[in-house]
Amino acid sequence: TEAGAEREKPPKSVCVYDCRSENSAASARTIDIANMDHSSFLQALRQEFSLSTNETFVISTTDRGEIDAELYEELVNGKTLLLLKSMNQELPAATQERIEFLPHYHTLVQCGMYEYYASEGQKALPYAFAELIDNALSATAKNTGIRRIEIRLLFDESQGGPAIVVMDNGCGMTSKQLNNWAVYRLSKFIRENGMKREETGYVRPDPVPRSLNSDISYFGVGGKQAVFYIGQSVRMISKPAGSPDVHEFVMSKEDFEHKEMNKQEIYSGFIRNRKPGDYSHVESEEQFLQSIVTEEYGKESFTAVVITGIQQEHVTYLKQNFNLWTRELAHTYHYYIHGVDGNDKKIGRKNDHVSNIDIKISLFDRSPRVPLLMNLREVDNDMQTLYINSCVSTFEFKATGAGDSLVEGLIRYHPFLYDRETYPLDPYAASAGPLEDEDEDCIIVNSEARGKRPIFECFWNGRLIPYTTLSEFEWCAKPKKSGAVPLECYNRISGVLFANDRFQVSTNKLTFMDLELQLRDKGTIFTKMHNGQEQRVNIQREFTNWLKESHEHFDKQVMFQGFMGSTTRTDV
Amino acid sequence: TEAGAEREKPPKSVCVYDCRSENSAASARTIDIANMDHSSFLQALRQEFSLSTNETFVISTTDRGEIDAELYEELVNGKTLLLLKSMNQELPAATQERIEFLPHYHTLVQCGMYEYYASEGQKALPYAFAELIDNALSATAKNTGIRRIEIRLLFDESQGGPAIVVMDNGCGMTSKQLNNWAVYRLSKFIRENGMKREETGYVRPDPVPRSLNSDISYFGVGGKQAVFYIGQSVRMISKPAGSPDVHEFVMSKEDFEHKEMNKQEIYSGFIRNRKPGDYSHVESEEQFLQSIVTEEYGKESFTAVVITGIQQEHVTYLKQNFNLWTRELAHTYHYYIHGVDGNDKKIGRKNDHVSNIDIKISLFDRSPRVPLLMNLREVDNDMQTLYINSCVSTFEFKATGAGDSLVEGLIRYHPFLYDRETYPLDPYAASAGPLEDEDEDCIIVNSEARGKRPIFECFWNGRLIPYTTLSEFEWCAKPKKSGAVPLECYNRISGVLFANDRFQVSTNKLTFMDLELQLRDKGTIFTKMHNGQEQRVNIQREFTNWLKESHEHFDKQVMFQGFMGSTTRTDV
Ligand SMILES: Nc1ncnc2c1ncn2[C@@H]1O[C@H](COP(=O)(O)OP(=O)(O)OP(=O)(O)O)[C@@H](O)[C@H]1O
Ligand SMILES: Nc1ncnc2c1ncn2[C@@H]1O[C@H](COP(=O)(O)OP(=O)(O)OP(=O)(O)O)[C@@H](O)[C@H]1O
Ligand SMILES: [Mg+2]
Ligand SMILES: [Mg+2]
Repeated sequence: TEAGAEREKPPKSVCVYDCRSENSAASARTIDIANMDHSSFLQALRQEFSLSTNETFVISTTDRGEIDAELYEELVNGKTLLLLKSMNQELPAATQERIEFLPHYHTLVQCGMYEYYASEGQKALPYAFAELIDNALSATAKNTGIRRIEIRLLFDESQGGPAIVVMDNGCGMTSKQLNNWAVYRLSKFIRENGMKREETGYVRPDPVPRSLNSDISYFGVGGKQAVFYIGQSVRMISKPAGSPDVHEFVMSKEDFEHKEMNKQEIYSGFIRNRKPGDYSHVESEEQFLQSIVTEEYGKESFTAVVITGIQQEHVTYLKQNFNLWTRELAHTYHYYIHGVDGNDKKIGRKNDHVSNIDIKISLFDRSPRVPLLMNLREVDNDMQTLYINSCVSTFEFKATGAGDSLVEGLIRYHPFLYDRETYPLDPYAASAGPLEDEDEDCIIVNSEARGKRPIFECFWNGRLIPYTTLSEFEWCAKPKKSGAVPLECYNRISGVLFANDRFQVSTNKLTFMDLELQLRDKGTIFTKMHNGQEQRVNIQREFTNWLKESHEHFDKQVMFQGFMGSTTRTDV
Repeated sequence: TEAGAEREKPPKSVCVYDCRSENSAASARTIDIANMDHSSFLQALRQEFSLSTNETFVISTTDRGEIDAELYEELVNGKTLLLLKSMNQELPAATQERIEFLPHYHTLVQCGMYEYYASEGQKALPYAFAELIDNALSATAKNTGIRRIEIRLLFDESQGGPAIVVMDNGCGMTSKQLNNWAVYRLSKFIRENGMKREETGYVRPDPVPRSLNSDISYFGVGGKQAVFYIGQSVRMISKPAGSPDVHEFVMSKEDFEHKEMNKQEIYSGFIRNRKPGDYSHVESEEQFLQSIVTEEYGKESFTAVVITGIQQEHVTYLKQNFNLWTRELAHTYHYYIHGVDGNDKKIGRKNDHVSNIDIKISLFDRSPRVPLLMNLREVDNDMQTLYINSCVSTFEFKATGAGDSLVEGLIRYHPFLYDRETYPLDPYAASAGPLEDEDEDCIIVNSEARGKRPIFECFWNGRLIPYTTLSEFEWCAKPKKSGAVPLECYNRISGVLFANDRFQVSTNKLTFMDLELQLRDKGTIFTKMHNGQEQRVNIQREFTNWLKESHEHFDKQVMFQGFMGSTTRTDV
């Protein structure tokens, strides 16, 4: 073997178990075969295991494939082999075969693909954006000034698009943090920060009203799921406060494929550290990227998530349904955008900046040349805005359970006025697709106010979890028989639940795992609240009183006679 | 550096970029620091970069942390460092920093945790088992005799439980295939089999009626999601046909934690190759495992998935809801278990073995000593069994679309007989939890037959996708006005759709991604089928005729007068 050393072949050795006889030791011998051909390998075996020249043997893989000249060439470094008397002999002692089982790169590239859809694709994109907004909200949580979050849809192909950029003026990432970003499933709870190998350093934020704590990350997957749902490549560009350097990292399907093809390490890559504004590495076709890099001058810290390889159907969807998906985002972040009391238009513009969070969307397309701009704060037809502005009275409560779990809750009354219910219609219901049941006509829905819709929308750390609703609690459910309050009043209430981080959500943040289970637990205590003060009263009685008063004060006329026949009522 | 070589330290080098001046080259120099202390490192730097003794410099991480004596000790092999004039200078040229971003082992260990629940946990476990049954069905697809699949719940702690074993007499796995099993997201489409580096070798099975092709895997995640949803450790034991060896591989949370703690390679492990029945490696407490290994004698091929570290709440659930979750499994695999025509009890036991698939569940508990045994074929109250046995007439069709996509469909008529609807009640509805709307009383539901429930349950490659239902198609929807067929007849139909592999399902196989979208596509053609023959007729007219005939032949009495007032009918 020494003779061929100058050829400088990559290291290659095999691990051979002698399995010929009952008494052979179970330990393997390593043979360096980097410089052997098939026949010298067979010779080396004879020598290593003192096989006499007339002794027959067979050398095979652990799957009993004989190492002939052809298979020999394909042996990879570290492979375990069996030395046998005959191919079908049984193993006298067990052998240990070293294997590698690195997750395939589809773990990252496909992680968002078959998750978000859930119900036939329609509303998936806003929830992918939401993951990126979540990250931006976390990053800007400690900003002292305006927290700027921008989603730019760069669909003008003359500028090198389509691309989507999500930018924030948050704390940015150090190179170490950017590396951590790329590690799938490395959550904040198990992460080391900085160079010292200390424990995670995650500090749970102090409780704040309605859990608007901006601490909206959990699994270490959201960003990756989102970008690979939206496109095929992401360039993370980030500058942490206090550092003169911008860090940049690209993760792309193409790059993974390239590494696999060339048998390079899949999960190894390069962060580019550079000065702000330096776009020397940017291809000239990628004009939009040059502008983004140019914007870096003078920013103390920021993060830009630049997604390319956008699926054409996403581009089409985002252009054609601009109002739909921006409304969904405005709904999701309603209380972040408008502040703890939400978008109450009666208060008016005096109270202008209750929130310092600006989430802006801009759509650049070839034509019209003027970009479409929207601040999510301007959206005034998301469900929460509709609920808040049609309500005349609110009932506040909280639910506390084991281990610090807390839900703040709110019920709103939407009165009957003159000739109609003021309970807002779901704007989605109106635009629903072909599946819409023909007898769920809009007008009928509204004439029943809430109808059979659940009462509560549910928020987690202040942001909407869109697929979990809660129909009611025992103490606010419509009773079997009409009592002091007419039954239809129970259809005039909407509600919101604000759960804190002691409740768990699914990886895609579309559903709660255990909200309802926990809230229905016997140990959960509901308390009426008034101006932030707990009130030691029977919540059901208080709720019923509130409902009765709301009805008496605010319902302005008896309902159109004949709408609900009394016959229907009596047999319930 | 040579002097210290005998100390045999692990290799450690750093990559230093000279960033002091505009003209410095952008390439890094590698310095071997395995045998240097901090001050000799600083000296080596001076030498390497020809720094004069009075020249000041600073050496830092890419996050601008000065490499002082303390940080120096913590440097890891391959780290990129910057040689700077001063700590805050900007980088004249970009530096490339090599990083590793191996997915965290939570990728595997938590992959099932926050996925299956979806709707507050209740029905999650049967769907985890379904993933393992899917795998067993694929593995036994080519069996010539009985395809045996067993789920054993070993809850007798005196035998070393709790453990859950899923066994099949399928083709088993070679050591290479077992290695592939462990690779997260390595789907059959991208896998190399055997030692030769040839292409995947995946062959799409030929079309079979109702797509009962047993080819129910797609993503390369199901087995891992399932086992780590159920427990914390899995031992895969498998013997491929034609090999004398059994291959065994353990993947466990504990093992991953251990490797992380000891800074060992996370995705490296050992397959044990041994003769059948050899349990020399099994701890004596694990009696149940000894028995399983002992059963190996004489089996030509098999796979056993042995799950331990079972969550106590799962044990409780499985014991207390035995009938519920076995019914759900019987429902999921109805057509695999009963054959292409399903569990039609009118045909009786003559037609006994339409299917050669036996799925058996056994529950071993300390008391009673006698295990609870059940063959899923015995379940006679799953929804499909109920539909099949209460129907009097069927309407067959198929839907074909772009790219080979095919859905076979069936609509069944459940007549009104004498004084009641025969449309089956959903057994779940009866046992539903606290959320159940009080006015959805069972009897009322049945008196409306199907009521507002969707018509179609949907199967993919022959197995149920439980969370996707399809309410109706245009041609079988209840018309606005009563025509030749009384409107209530539209409430007496149930349906099944059998989609082939050209439709996509979500990773957890709980929902279809695009079934409804594709079926509503203009390009999709619906054809009436009769005894396997296409009929070139107008499907809507044929369906209406069929419904009319079903009504006239099978509905045995007019409905209880007064049930649907004519006033209600006229204003629709
Ligand atoms: N805009 C950003 N600014 C600063 N840091 C960010 C930003 N986006 C992501 N990060 C960092 O990258 C990490 C990984 O983000 P990712 O969204 O993939 O997972 P996560 O937020 O930790 O968890 P989740 O799965 O709940 O989203 C974050 O925890 C955060 O440290
Ligand atoms: N019981 C079994 N017998 C033989 N091979 C099996 C068995 N279970 C799993 N395998 C092998 O391991 C592979 C991985 O299984 P796993 O369930 O994790 O993913 P998959 O079935 O490929 O895809 P999916 O995510 O759709 O389940 C399978 O494709 C199959 O080759
Ligand atoms: Mg996130
Ligand atoms: Mg599978």
